[in-house]
Amino acid sequence: MSRFITENFLLQTESAKRLYFEHAQNQPIIDYHCHIPPREIAEDRRFENMTQIWLGGDHYKWRALRAAGIDEKYITGSAPDWEKFEKWASICPLTVRNPLFHWTMLELNRPFGINDRYLTQETARSIWDECNAKLATPDFSARGIMKQMRVKLICTTDDPADSLKYHQQLSEDYRSGRFPIRILPTFRPDKVFPRTCATPEGVVSYLKYLTRLSEAADVDISSFAALRSAFAKRHRFFHSVGCRLSDCGFELFQWTAPEPGDSHERSFANILKGETISEKEIVALSSVLLSDLGRLNAEKNWTSQLHIGAMRNNSTRIYRQLGPDAGCDSMVDGSYGKALSRYLDDLDKDSKLPKTIVYNLNPDANYLLASLVANFNDGTIPGKMQYGAGWWFLDQKNGMEEQLETLSNMGLLSLFVGMLTDSRSFLSYTRHEYFRRILCNLLGSEMESGLIPNDFDWIGKMVEDICYYNAERYFQF
Amino acid sequence: MSRFITENFLLQTESAKRLYFEHAQNQPIIDYHCHIPPREIAEDRRFENMTQIWLGGDHYKWRALRAAGIDEKYITGSAPDWEKFEKWASICPLTVRNPLFHWTMLELNRPFGINDRYLTQETARSIWDECNAKLATPDFSARGIMKQMRVKLICTTDDPADSLKYHQQLSEDYRSGRFPIRILPTFRPDKVFPRTCATPEGVVSYLKYLTRLSEAADVDISSFAALRSAFAKRHRFFHSVGCRLSDCGFELFQWTAPEPGDSHERSFANILKGETISEKEIVALSSVLLSDLGRLNAEKNWTSQLHIGAMRNNSTRIYRQLGPDAGCDSMVDGSYGKALSRYLDDLDKDSKLPKTIVYNLNPDANYLLASLVANFNDGTIPGKMQYGAGWWFLDQKNGMEEQLETLSNMGLLSLFVGMLTDSRSFLSYTRHEYFRRILCNLLGSEMESGLIPNDFDWIGKMVEDICYYNAERYFQF
Amino acid sequence: MSRFITENFLLQTESAKRLYFEHAQNQPIIDYHCHIPPREIAEDRRFENMTQIWLGGDHYKWRALRAAGIDEKYITGSAPDWEKFEKWASICPLTVRNPLFHWTMLELNRPFGINDRYLTQETARSIWDECNAKLATPDFSARGIMKQMRVKLICTTDDPADSLKYHQQLSEDYRSGRFPIRILPTFRPDKVFPRTCATPEGVVSYLKYLTRLSEAADVDISSFAALRSAFAKRHRFFHSVGCRLSDCGFELFQWTAPEPGDSHERSFANILKGETISEKEIVALSSVLLSDLGRLNAEKNWTSQLHIGAMRNNSTRIYRQLGPDAGCDSMVDGSYGKALSRYLDDLDKDSKLPKTIVYNLNPDANYLLASLVANFNDGTIPGKMQYGAGWWFLDQKNGMEEQLETLSNMGLLSLFVGMLTDSRSFLSYTRHEYFRRILCNLLGSEMESGLIPNDFDWIGKMVEDICYYNAERYFQF
Repeated sequence: MSRFITENFLLQTESAKRLYFEHAQNQPIIDYHCHIPPREIAEDRRFENMTQIWLGGDHYKWRALRAAGIDEKYITGSAPDWEKFEKWASICPLTVRNPLFHWTMLELNRPFGINDRYLTQETARSIWDECNAKLATPDFSARGIMKQMRVKLICTTDDPADSLKYHQQLSEDYRSGRFPIRILPTFRPDKVFPRTCATPEGVVSYLKYLTRLSEAADVDISSFAALRSAFAKRHRFFHSVGCRLSDCGFELFQWTAPEPGDSHERSFANILKGETISEKEIVALSSVLLSDLGRLNAEKNWTSQLHIGAMRNNSTRIYRQLGPDAGCDSMVDGSYGKALSRYLDDLDKDSKLPKTIVYNLNPDANYLLASLVANFNDGTIPGKMQYGAGWWFLDQKNGMEEQLETLSNMGLLSLFVGMLTDSRSFLSYTRHEYFRRILCNLLGSEMESGLIPNDFDWIGKMVEDICYYNAERYFQF
Repeated sequence: MSRFITENFLLQTESAKRLYFEHAQNQPIIDYHCHIPPREIAEDRRFENMTQIWLGGDHYKWRALRAAGIDEKYITGSAPDWEKFEKWASICPLTVRNPLFHWTMLELNRPFGINDRYLTQETARSIWDECNAKLATPDFSARGIMKQMRVKLICTTDDPADSLKYHQQLSEDYRSGRFPIRILPTFRPDKVFPRTCATPEGVVSYLKYLTRLSEAADVDISSFAALRSAFAKRHRFFHSVGCRLSDCGFELFQWTAPEPGDSHERSFANILKGETISEKEIVALSSVLLSDLGRLNAEKNWTSQLHIGAMRNNSTRIYRQLGPDAGCDSMVDGSYGKALSRYLDDLDKDSKLPKTIVYNLNPDANYLLASLVANFNDGTIPGKMQYGAGWWFLDQKNGMEEQLETLSNMGLLSLFVGMLTDSRSFLSYTRHEYFRRILCNLLGSEMESGLIPNDFDWIGKMVEDICYYNAERYFQF
Repeated sequence: MSRFITENFLLQTESAKRLYFEHAQNQPIIDYHCHIPPREIAEDRRFENMTQIWLGGDHYKWRALRAAGIDEKYITGSAPDWEKFEKWASICPLTVRNPLFHWTMLELNRPFGINDRYLTQETARSIWDECNAKLATPDFSARGIMKQMRVKLICTTDDPADSLKYHQQLSEDYRSGRFPIRILPTFRPDKVFPRTCATPEGVVSYLKYLTRLSEAADVDISSFAALRSAFAKRHRFFHSVGCRLSDCGFELFQWTAPEPGDSHERSFANILKGETISEKEIVALSSVLLSDLGRLNAEKNWTSQLHIGAMRNNSTRIYRQLGPDAGCDSMVDGSYGKALSRYLDDLDKDSKLPKTIVYNLNPDANYLLASLVANFNDGTIPGKMQYGAGWWFLDQKNGMEEQLETLSNMGLLSLFVGMLTDSRSFLSYTRHEYFRRILCNLLGSEMESGLIPNDFDWIGKMVEDICYYNAERYFQF
């Protein structure tokens, strides 16, 4: 075969090529949202083979394997690593037009340098051997790969109860010059919200979590006020370790204005007694914490991230077998625009609305969300309210193009803080390359057809900003 | 005019042409979902004129005629067939960019061989005469047309109370070699669900239906248990006549987990007494039957089809005049993702989830549905959970392209079981041609721009699979 | 720079150019829906400078300025006009790919003749001076601009309590030949609906409005029946001044079938007593008025316009500061298909359904609405039920293309009544040019690729109809 990932992959006009090669390709990577375990960077994890680094936690590939009729044994089961890899290779040709196909080819190309073969049953063994040999070298450790990929800074995703000890070590390594990449935590307090407390088992697991949080914060969480105080204390601690973003995930976004009186304390007291509470109480308590989070973020100049619209753990069978994040998640339908508007407004009217990035999973909300967040730009920070990059199922060529199109029409693309991997894998940094090629292709094509100024200084700067500088200016790490 | 339906119609690249001519064009047709009356095939119906075969039951054209300001007399009323045809011809030029325009030109081209004229007021008479003359020949009987169009197998849509006598005759004709095309029934139990039982008239018509079903099944339906038993009995009977698919239509998909106790029996007893029941009871009873259907399908290796999202009979005026399917249907909005997820999960956790194809009418659910069904692929059957072809209002170029795009991004296009006509007409088989051209155009264009492998063996096989082999393997007729 | 708005702007094929120059460009403008204050035309307002005519009421630009981090002082605040203009110029380059960028370039090009510069910080002063000089000439008065832009007729948006005195003057000017452009009112009764009556302040403002309406109609509104009678009386008055359209705006469209009994009178009596009523009562009263409006429109051969889906005044802070229409509006999500269907059906079954144009703001309802309204075409008037042009956030290239695509697939594009500005500004008439270029580009491209007939008589006539003749025939002013 001729190479698939050519130099000009996705770049269909001369202007697109010029934009990419002169303005995008060499920008460093700020990966401001991902799920890489900080421990693996701290310990500079080495990977024995491609299955470990590439298939082990990749629920995208698991879904594809199940769809292709592969038995669970070869996906998450007991089969040896080589057999799992071989199965994946054997069905990879079926993924044509799914994002997995491009991702696979991009990741084999960089960092592995393999671009003369597709991944198929026939090439599985040679690619396995070649990649595993590279994985055995220092350039392919966790840190090695990150350096190869020109990563400058990443933000992981961390629980408020987390000690951040790996982050502290990584910070020390950075400051001392032992490791040139900044690794920062993100405050992800989903577990603090009593979302599971509608069921007895859910209350048990929530109480267990409270114990952890209580210890981490050194606060006796014997009331809702104490929980809020522990919450704020951990926020301060995260700040001290360099955290500058929070993140929350939502099925449907729900928020209700805090009620006067002590209803929150009563609900919380019931949880502490081991009792379930109603959905309405869950939303009420969560709303208070969500508003606290907004205020704390505003005070510390953090950025709020809201990921909205995932319906998780659809398959009870797989959930029992494998737990969450096993490839059985999809999207919700249903309304949440008004609740989100009320939440943002409630912060905004007290001048306590932080910089905010909203991501949606169901694309039917693209225009809704992009237009909604823009209501709350207040003239203080360029691009304060961001409609975020294509997320999860929308993190693909079509989804990225739609996000760029939506954002362009509903807001100011020029101020977009750009791409992130949202990934658990050290091999995902080519997503930034993918995004940059798509961005340059879009803009280059429009330069040539007279839809945007045919001016490389102007549009080139716009590309540089979206790929790197906007994020640097916006997050102020 | 030069020909409109040229050899290269819709094929805009050399690769698209090669894919179409070498891999798609000559595949036989498996039309696994349609509404052709089996009696018309059994009796090999002859059509007197174009109005009978082309306009008589075509609510798409009726809508267009009404929109164009044509009086109902010339649509479904008392006007002579020629005048109805002439009216349609006179407004056909107004349909440019509506799917009717392409369908019309495709259907005149094949099987009628007319491609040197548009259908207009001026050409109406000549086309009327030419087509009617052809309709008078054996090649244009019901069976004649199907043979001309290279149809191999079709599945009609049949009520559980139906005797399937025409199917039995057709099966005999097929086995004996008198007719080379397999005609199979589809189990469509919508009338078994007590959906109408919220109103007194609805209860009356439901009870009438139960009488028919009771006779067909030879079961005294004096309880809900007896209904379920009659239901299962008819399922077995349909299987014996070769049925391998079920189909259900839904406004919003609704399903609730079966309740313990005898509430279902009590609700059903009320119906038998001629009383109305609540919407909640309707959903509860229907849910039980829907779960039964899933289990029965799984046990017999049938495929479940779910058509979701039609809001029917919007115009009371037309409904009173003409009944259902009169061109006054559109889409619903509203949430149903969670209900569908719970239904599929409930079957899946007992390993009783059959192969399933889900079709949606409102395109705002495209990504939702395609991602949702994929949660339940279980590694047993390649492409087990299918996101179905563009349906009804989405059965057009844009809708097909969106379906292919959605499916590609959310699942594995390579395993797609492909196109169906969903039609009441013997002249709709060019929809397969239309789909194939669109598919090849999409893939050919991406081969040339480097988005998918430029490999005709690989992509050519993919085309063949989608056009024919996937369906053959999947349905196992 | 070379010119940005070239002669062939947006026209990417030879066929597109021919369609535009031969069939679209020279059509007059019927702007059948806008928000221009009739007083400004009656008084032939002169504008001192570009800030007054271009930024003063333009909440699109305000949003962009806030998003770009500009202080409110330079947007709606106390800064001098020149400084406001300069701020807008300074951030205009950031609007690339937002509709504001094309609109800005189009509006500078026509009527100002500026097309050798982009609007930037650097060019701000020269453009300011040049445009202000032109604004000082008679050709750039309100009437002067309208004449330059080849406007033939516009419909403003007027409250039922309005005296229409400016309209009467404008009508006189038209009849006497002093002003060649017809200016007609539109009946916009949103304030008649007791939508605000869920809160005490809302009841106060509603009662104030009733007083105005009472005086305008010379009816003592002491009962709901009296309100309906005043409503009908104002409808007759508007008709006498040439009004031929109504317009209503909705968040979610809500409608319930009128209840028998005197519940409406009781609800209304409570309002008159200064008491709040429930949301349900608000919808019930509004539904009666909405049905009245439909019937009145049908009787007078008016056209109903329904604008559905705006969530307004999201920012309490800005609302308190600036009131409505300040750039803090976005879209709603949520279902309304069934309510709209029931409303239209209720009129249709009594043969009282007027010509209707429905516009949606959230694009996830595009297909829903376009397919829904088409259920009610009844063969009396070609194109009776219209799926309207891209509105507000959808009034941009992508939104227009989607509207054309949706309408084409769900109905008959050939009968589309075309573009409107929906604008408060005298500088928005190039939106018609923008639309026409987009329309011709779409059709021209499809002529060349064989998707529609390559016949300039046919498609050229279609273009002329959509740009002008369909509206002329449809509205029958």
